Amino acid sequence: MMAFIFQLKAAPMSSGLNVLLFLICIFSTHSLISSHQLHPLDALSTSELTQVHTILKSTICSTSCHNLSYHYVGLAEPDKPIVLAWIDDNAKVPRRQAFVLARINQQNHEIIVDLTASAIISNKVHDGHGYPLLTLDEQTAANKLPFSYSPFIKSIEKRGLKKEEVVCQSYTIGWFGDKKTKRIIRVTCYYLDGTINLYMRPIEGITVTVDLDQMKITGYQDRAIVPVPKADGTDYREVKQKQPVSSPIKPITMLQPHGPSFTIDGHIVRWADWKFHLAFDMRVGPIISLASVRDHDKDAYRDVLYRGFVSELFVPYMDITEEWYYRTYFDAGEFGFGLCATSLFPSKDCPENAAFLDGYYISQNGTPTKIHNVICVFERYGGDVLWRHTETAIPGKVYTEVRPDVSLVVRMVSIIGNYDYIVDWEFRQAGSIKVNIGLSGLLEIKASTYIHKDQIRDEVYGTLVSQNTVGTYHDHFLNFHLDLDVDGYDNSFIKTKLQTRRVMDKKSPRRSYWTAVSETAKTESDARINLGSGAAELLVVNPNKKTKMGNYVGYRLLPGSFVHNLLSNDDYPSIRAGFAKYNVWVTPYNKSEKWAGGTFVDQSQGDDNLAVWSLRNREIENKDIVLWYTLGLHHVPIQEDFPIMPTVNNGFELRPANFFEHNPVLKVKSLGKVEQLKCSKECQHGFNCTN
Amino acid sequence: MMAFIFQLKAAPMSSGLNVLLFLICIFSTHSLISSHQLHPLDALSTSELTQVHTILKSTICSTSCHNLSYHYVGLAEPDKPIVLAWIDDNAKVPRRQAFVLARINQQNHEIIVDLTASAIISNKVHDGHGYPLLTLDEQTAANKLPFSYSPFIKSIEKRGLKKEEVVCQSYTIGWFGDKKTKRIIRVTCYYLDGTINLYMRPIEGITVTVDLDQMKITGYQDRAIVPVPKADGTDYREVKQKQPVSSPIKPITMLQPHGPSFTIDGHIVRWADWKFHLAFDMRVGPIISLASVRDHDKDAYRDVLYRGFVSELFVPYMDITEEWYYRTYFDAGEFGFGLCATSLFPSKDCPENAAFLDGYYISQNGTPTKIHNVICVFERYGGDVLWRHTETAIPGKVYTEVRPDVSLVVRMVSIIGNYDYIVDWEFRQAGSIKVNIGLSGLLEIKASTYIHKDQIRDEVYGTLVSQNTVGTYHDHFLNFHLDLDVDGYDNSFIKTKLQTRRVMDKKSPRRSYWTAVSETAKTESDARINLGSGAAELLVVNPNKKTKMGNYVGYRLLPGSFVHNLLSNDDYPSIRAGFAKYNVWVTPYNKSEKWAGGTFVDQSQGDDNLAVWSLRNREIENKDIVLWYTLGLHHVPIQEDFPIMPTVNNGFELRPANFFEHNPVLKVKSLGKVEQLKCSKECQHGFNCTN
Repeated sequence: MMAFIFQLKAAPMSSGLNVLLFLICIFSTHSLISSHQLHPLDALSTSELTQVHTILKSTICSTSCHNLSYHYVGLAEPDKPIVLAWIDDNAKVPRRQAFVLARINQQNHEIIVDLTASAIISNKVHDGHGYPLLTLDEQTAANKLPFSYSPFIKSIEKRGLKKEEVVCQSYTIGWFGDKKTKRIIRVTCYYLDGTINLYMRPIEGITVTVDLDQMKITGYQDRAIVPVPKADGTDYREVKQKQPVSSPIKPITMLQPHGPSFTIDGHIVRWADWKFHLAFDMRVGPIISLASVRDHDKDAYRDVLYRGFVSELFVPYMDITEEWYYRTYFDAGEFGFGLCATSLFPSKDCPENAAFLDGYYISQNGTPTKIHNVICVFERYGGDVLWRHTETAIPGKVYTEVRPDVSLVVRMVSIIGNYDYIVDWEFRQAGSIKVNIGLSGLLEIKASTYIHKDQIRDEVYGTLVSQNTVGTYHDHFLNFHLDLDVDGYDNSFIKTKLQTRRVMDKKSPRRSYWTAVSETAKTESDARINLGSGAAELLVVNPNKKTKMGNYVGYRLLPGSFVHNLLSNDDYPSIRAGFAKYNVWVTPYNKSEKWAGGTFVDQSQGDDNLAVWSLRNREIENKDIVLWYTLGLHHVPIQEDFPIMPTVNNGFELRPANFFEHNPVLKVKSLGKVEQLKCSKECQHGFNCTN
Repeated sequence: MMAFIFQLKAAPMSSGLNVLLFLICIFSTHSLISSHQLHPLDALSTSELTQVHTILKSTICSTSCHNLSYHYVGLAEPDKPIVLAWIDDNAKVPRRQAFVLARINQQNHEIIVDLTASAIISNKVHDGHGYPLLTLDEQTAANKLPFSYSPFIKSIEKRGLKKEEVVCQSYTIGWFGDKKTKRIIRVTCYYLDGTINLYMRPIEGITVTVDLDQMKITGYQDRAIVPVPKADGTDYREVKQKQPVSSPIKPITMLQPHGPSFTIDGHIVRWADWKFHLAFDMRVGPIISLASVRDHDKDAYRDVLYRGFVSELFVPYMDITEEWYYRTYFDAGEFGFGLCATSLFPSKDCPENAAFLDGYYISQNGTPTKIHNVICVFERYGGDVLWRHTETAIPGKVYTEVRPDVSLVVRMVSIIGNYDYIVDWEFRQAGSIKVNIGLSGLLEIKASTYIHKDQIRDEVYGTLVSQNTVGTYHDHFLNFHLDLDVDGYDNSFIKTKLQTRRVMDKKSPRRSYWTAVSETAKTESDARINLGSGAAELLVVNPNKKTKMGNYVGYRLLPGSFVHNLLSNDDYPSIRAGFAKYNVWVTPYNKSEKWAGGTFVDQSQGDDNLAVWSLRNREIENKDIVLWYTLGLHHVPIQEDFPIMPTVNNGFELRPANFFEHNPVLKVKSLGKVEQLKCSKECQHGFNCTN
């Protein structure tokens, strides 16, 4: 059983009593952990991961497995009806199965392992295009190769750089029309020498090509010497900052004197009227499953989201030169959005009232590996208002009712090389699920000879953000797999357009108004939508269930700011990242269609992805459907992004729309006062307010 | 001098010591209040408001003023160069002047009073169209008229309603092509009888027309009897809720054991690297002036925003029938966005760490009137991340740096009848100003005979949200006056378009990329923009100042979700609310162009508003310019909006773009731990953790 450990991250105690002590003493009396039943959607446990390797070794690999390497192992989820049946009758857990992407004898394998039966269910050699995600181990090995490659050493010496201050990173190479591909990557090197901010100090002009199967350098170019940008001002560590520093902020934190209001039972999180399953996956990171919300009128939990996760990230750079054109990354399918997740820093990445969970992935060699504190869960109160009204219309009376807005956040942070992606799934009392992506970390910098904009003659494909330092134009497109099951699994997708109507007769002094015209998408082609092209509301409804008023019960997609892929449709990265062509897609549920960029994404050729699946133009009316949302950001770097980027946020919200008969938070109680935190009379004199 | 009183809202003390006590004891030693110099942009004080009335009585009104009523009195701000000169040489405060909109002898007057000289500077009779905002007193008087009007009494009796349970509200009537207008309004009545939620119980079918100058009913129609929706389930007061209620949330608050990090000196707020002036105005609510941000590299405050406020709100409803077609409100120009502000509820409208300010307006009869706690200021920490990175590329080392995101919020809540608008100006450490509008309160409901959607035959112009209860389709358009002075007052407006480029030669395996193409707006017509019509970044830059890299220093407008006015251009409400035609406008600075809907907005005919001013197509390049942003929301009501609406948020952000030489928060220190809150050893035993 996977050991998601619930921990309250109490900071080290100071000599005096501190506020955190409260939390601890409450935790000791009302433990949030309880022994739990295995859930069909639980991620694979360490013992299950170990079992996968044991089974492979004793079956497929009992004789002739050279170079067995694991690139992905995750839960092969049971069919949806089986999971739902398990929930209904609480029967024994469905068979546990693992989905494995492995390289065996230099071939791509797609294997399903039945853990219950200790047997291989299927083992397919993938003959098609593309490769599985890179392992951390092979990247580490590749990054070392240049240091024993004499042409590289010469290049470093030629530039007058110290070898011991060079560090290298592995980059996927994309696909640009070649029929035959090998499993190769590019290794790009950076210079430290006075900073830890290597990304601000690229050693430009060198192209190192590594064949991963041979694990050796198979191509090398040193085209041009470009100055390495200087180290000064690039180190972002607090200890390295000189005066003057910013005006300090006094300590501030969220205080919950009586402890949190959520519980984590195994992998089931319960908070306010929400209940959901939370798992960690090495490819997509956090997976929210079976999110349902309690309807007090119906005295029942009602389904909202069967499964939601970041399905793929596409990050194309806009520099077409030799050293840069290939930089069109797929961060989930090539690097692993979960695999690159970082241990969260208590009281910094998540507030002091957060609880933390660990996650596990399989290493290249089959060893389960832990990411400590990979997910945090906390309640947020940022001073916002859930609803309010002050009524002054009633003579002689004033009524004010206000409810503060508290929400529950599930957070993971993934570090894809230079970029830090902060992923928040926020559950709100009013029944909505809000997703926010924060982008921070470091720009991917191109070294340049220029030290002032006025010198620039050739196209630099970016902004001069510091001397010799060009922040290259690029995009981020994150696709979300949102398998909404609104009050049951047969749903429809409705576009409600707001249309202007002319007033033609003289019945009204008005000349126009707008009205809402709804249209149900029949097939997949009806549901490919680029936002901004007309006033429309997008809804997933259950056409089989109506409110008492006769409205279909539904959830609405509220996009944040949105952009589209600007690369031409026939460009290779666009073909591979078909999902970035539209902001919204709807497909019929198909368990195998999980990852919008396809299964084998590294050097994929665009023959297995959301855009291709959608071409089948399947029926989606009153079916079990999946909503795919592509969130996009164009990034024109600015000097404020140097040497480290302030977080930029973008997201979307799934909000109930005629799902409830009335405002679901009408009956939310006022928050208790924190003054209920009491201490004895003696204590008053003990406080040292000035410290 | 206006008495903005700084108060820490400590909740009533319980018998034991509570956490708030800390704040108080810190406040007593480090008071945030200091005696302050009068600022040229300070709102008029109570004594200045009184002086206005005294001067009018002794001059214009010394003999023949019948029916003098004040509709607006606010600061007549000094010319910008005078204010800036005052800041530079700290000379004596410029002459204090008041701008007055009054009705005298049933004429609209626009008066400037010099308070320093106790004299009238100008007194213009406004012969044009439109009327000033309604006073609270005349609305109260009008709301009483139906109760002594026998046809109305008969209508109430005919419907079997109890007169004592009826309450009435005043509504402006818009303008629909009449050449001549009178100062009339509509009074619409509602039924209580078991609820305080009058807006859910309209008494439909009756039209009461009141002439405000005569203060009598001049028109009456009772067209149809429609059932008054039932009271059940409409009362939103906590004490009225029955079981089952929502799952309770345990107390949570923001704790600042060492007190807040901001100071309020007179009306100057200082926090982190920000400094700005804060005033309250009865028409527009909070006014942020002279916001500047400290640049530590330059050891100086640099200008960002000379003046920013909500300049107008346009709320058209989409029902064209006799009782509804006219509902096309201008909430600032007709009702007063500041005048309708409510006293904020400590620990509910604003968190426990908030400070509160009072505001003053002039009553119809010339009496200064206080709105207690009209604005709050607080620091927000919601668990977000200002910037972060984890570096794992350096062999054998892992570095993680994270800075928590703390911001400063200035909040006002305005209650325009049924709607509650929560206005937040949020100052962020990374140099941006974020504005958020939260909409809550009650729908404007039309009573209907229908109790189920399937019964609907005629157009109902809305959603059946409960029995007999139609939530009418409507919009909200808020226009913001944003007089950005980016590092000085001569600025330019730049549209940066992201354009796809084909790769035509064979130099690159890529087929396309995008690049950023900037275009400076020369005249006003270049700067009228509807968002969503092409990938573009919008910037206000100072073309006279460049960074060391040669980039123009600038601020970028980042819109939230945006929509446009869907009414036809020739429709009367569109003509009046020209500002809603585009999301973005830029005009040259003109002190008289403050309010996007014009000065006399009630029954205005569209001859004095932003759209008309912009038609002059003035030059805006390298000039003192004003950015106007129109934030829009279409509202298709849903059952969740009944009987009170969960808050919906929308906003925008002004973010530095090459304003700083580098990330301005690179040097922000980590937050101190809250464990620094110490108390003596004895105290530990005094705590009662279980209470």
